[in-house]
Amino acid sequence: MADVRQSARAQGARAHSALAQPIEAAEYRERRERLLASEEAAGVDLTVWWANHRVLYLSGFAFVPTERPIALVTAGAESLLFVPRLEVEHAEAYAHVDRVVSYPEYPDRVHPMRLLAEELKALGLGRRFGGDGDGYPKVMGYRGPRLSELTSAEFEPLDDALETMMQVKSPAEVALIRESARWAGRAHELLQERTAVGRSETEVEAEVAALANAELLAAYQGAYRPLSWGRSGPQAGYRGQIGAHSALPHSLTINAVFGPGDTLVTGATCPMFGYWSELERTMVMGEPSDAQRDAFAHMLALQDLAIDACRPGRSCASVDEAVRTYVREHGLSDAWRHHVGHNIGLRYHEGPFLDVGDHTEMQPGMLFTVEPGLYLPGLGGFRHSDTILVTESAPEFLTDYPRELERLIVPVS
Amino acid sequence: MADVRQSARAQGARAHSALAQPIEAAEYRERRERLLASEEAAGVDLTVWWANHRVLYLSGFAFVPTERPIALVTAGAESLLFVPRLEVEHAEAYAHVDRVVSYPEYPDRVHPMRLLAEELKALGLGRRFGGDGDGYPKVMGYRGPRLSELTSAEFEPLDDALETMMQVKSPAEVALIRESARWAGRAHELLQERTAVGRSETEVEAEVAALANAELLAAYQGAYRPLSWGRSGPQAGYRGQIGAHSALPHSLTINAVFGPGDTLVTGATCPMFGYWSELERTMVMGEPSDAQRDAFAHMLALQDLAIDACRPGRSCASVDEAVRTYVREHGLSDAWRHHVGHNIGLRYHEGPFLDVGDHTEMQPGMLFTVEPGLYLPGLGGFRHSDTILVTESAPEFLTDYPRELERLIVPVS
Repeated sequence: MADVRQSARAQGARAHSALAQPIEAAEYRERRERLLASEEAAGVDLTVWWANHRVLYLSGFAFVPTERPIALVTAGAESLLFVPRLEVEHAEAYAHVDRVVSYPEYPDRVHPMRLLAEELKALGLGRRFGGDGDGYPKVMGYRGPRLSELTSAEFEPLDDALETMMQVKSPAEVALIRESARWAGRAHELLQERTAVGRSETEVEAEVAALANAELLAAYQGAYRPLSWGRSGPQAGYRGQIGAHSALPHSLTINAVFGPGDTLVTGATCPMFGYWSELERTMVMGEPSDAQRDAFAHMLALQDLAIDACRPGRSCASVDEAVRTYVREHGLSDAWRHHVGHNIGLRYHEGPFLDVGDHTEMQPGMLFTVEPGLYLPGLGGFRHSDTILVTESAPEFLTDYPRELERLIVPVS
Repeated sequence: MADVRQSARAQGARAHSALAQPIEAAEYRERRERLLASEEAAGVDLTVWWANHRVLYLSGFAFVPTERPIALVTAGAESLLFVPRLEVEHAEAYAHVDRVVSYPEYPDRVHPMRLLAEELKALGLGRRFGGDGDGYPKVMGYRGPRLSELTSAEFEPLDDALETMMQVKSPAEVALIRESARWAGRAHELLQERTAVGRSETEVEAEVAALANAELLAAYQGAYRPLSWGRSGPQAGYRGQIGAHSALPHSLTINAVFGPGDTLVTGATCPMFGYWSELERTMVMGEPSDAQRDAFAHMLALQDLAIDACRPGRSCASVDEAVRTYVREHGLSDAWRHHVGHNIGLRYHEGPFLDVGDHTEMQPGMLFTVEPGLYLPGLGGFRHSDTILVTESAPEFLTDYPRELERLIVPVS
């Protein structure tokens, strides 16, 4: 049965004709144009963006963040990328900006921040500039002066404005996250199939990554790009959430060995031209105990009610309220550990959050991981996560994987 | 030949009796004690640390950084970890601190920063506190008030003091990085062996990770912990540095297919109880051309002179000066792209840097990646990286892998 499903899905993946496409140059331009309203409201002459996901969002340039500052600068309709010498050809080949300006190295004889300050003055910086920091953050041991010290302009944070813009996804972004979810599902099928008593999580995960990657590369024939630093291709694993350790929602890998009766919590994703999805499932090794069945059923009920609550006009808080009310009314408060979920896009987590303290109104185009969990020390963790799109009508699953217990039992014999 | 070397190394790994050990509780305590001098000099009542590698350095707690703040607080000899509810059991099991204090969730009805401010007041916060930030940085969409607003104490940055402390490694740290380098070497052997014309980088990397992981797990029998978020076990790959793309030193994965004549630049590492090493090699697919031999020879000469310059009492700048002088005198300035290297430890890059602008004096116990590179558009990139320990006498290689061209040719027939 699992083999048939796997084989059909694998063929489907290979036969899929409409492969995902990277974000187009026009969309990067349009994003920068949309920011202009916030820039005008803040009265800034130009903007400077440091965080790698923000540079990627505004220019399409994905890079390895190091001690060497990289900044996207916008001045009205003009855009430039400020990079160290070693990134010049890379930026020229991949960044959707008007021009690339480089500095030799960090820290070098002249600190790059001084060169950037000169560049900003040449671009017309007078009284005030915006962006996500008055200087490069202390990444990997970086040290340096603030731009406001070097230019006598003042800094006005615009990161919240940009974050708010990033919360609602465009159709092209949703398409990439949907494709990410498709490959996360494929990796998860392989994970479920390869997990067995006596094997270790690292062993199974490495094998799954190799197999799923091969399928993705066969489908994309060289056109696939993760646009992600350090990760490529579909991946699925456990992050230590095996047996009693699955009661730790943010466990790290412990290279546990699977045993009969273990409760398992999985995770699967695939970077797709910079974008991510999240798929998680609770599985059980062998016939579930009554306690496992009971916790699983409550978890599924919680996820059902939370997904159904993801509708435009409702607040993010109301989703978490609904879950917390159920938890309280069913005497499950001791098993509660965290809010319901988070937005997802170029980062694995981003705001708004499905949390009683987040009163953001949900809008079509927002995406959420919906992942209420129950954690019972000794027994394990119970959490599914699906990536859900808020639409004008019913919430839509971007992840597509069986949710019922009978389909999530790993045979032990 | 490669098979014999591989087999001997694999047996060596399995037979290795002195497996690496995690940092002991006493060393975490000793690190916090050493910080007290800086705290007294700055006149702070207590310290608050947010960055995950700093929390790991001071407490041994590795975690997934998200929108939920996690802080290590020290007040004199007392230490506590402030975590969201979902990390309580995880922190209690793994953090070397006196106690764990939790808040329900972020943002929740009462913002966690308000609860932390109360905790700090109870710990005796009066006029001033130190650490690496006056509030949690904007990780994954986090927003919140500063602690100085909530406590009326002022914030004094101590991150540079801690960074300086982290620059010199203890014997236990060096042992972990040496063990990381040993497994990086093993992964690199597999990478070299499996790379072949017509295969793709992602395919080979996934295969190598699976094989090398299996060997490490066999050697450690369950005692291995990466203490790293999202990575586990030995890994080796190309990050897109294949053929002409290898001329981009910070290329990202492009899923390139290997072809005859390609210049390749590799990278290999292994997280080992939180610590990293770096091993990189330039390889050629088939018989190298004269141009490849020439660039390779210059690169090797540069690395030789740079490694030899890593001696106590000399400045970091002097190493980079020596390389830049050679580059200039041999007419290679067009091929220069970046400084010589960086310190390495709990992060892949950290200060000081082997750069003309970094005048830090080298000391025994400092580690450097020594990786001068030459980049020739069309032909490719030429860079080895070794992880080198500064000692009282000669610089010591922690990485151990052939450096000469004849040992780095991938057969193409």
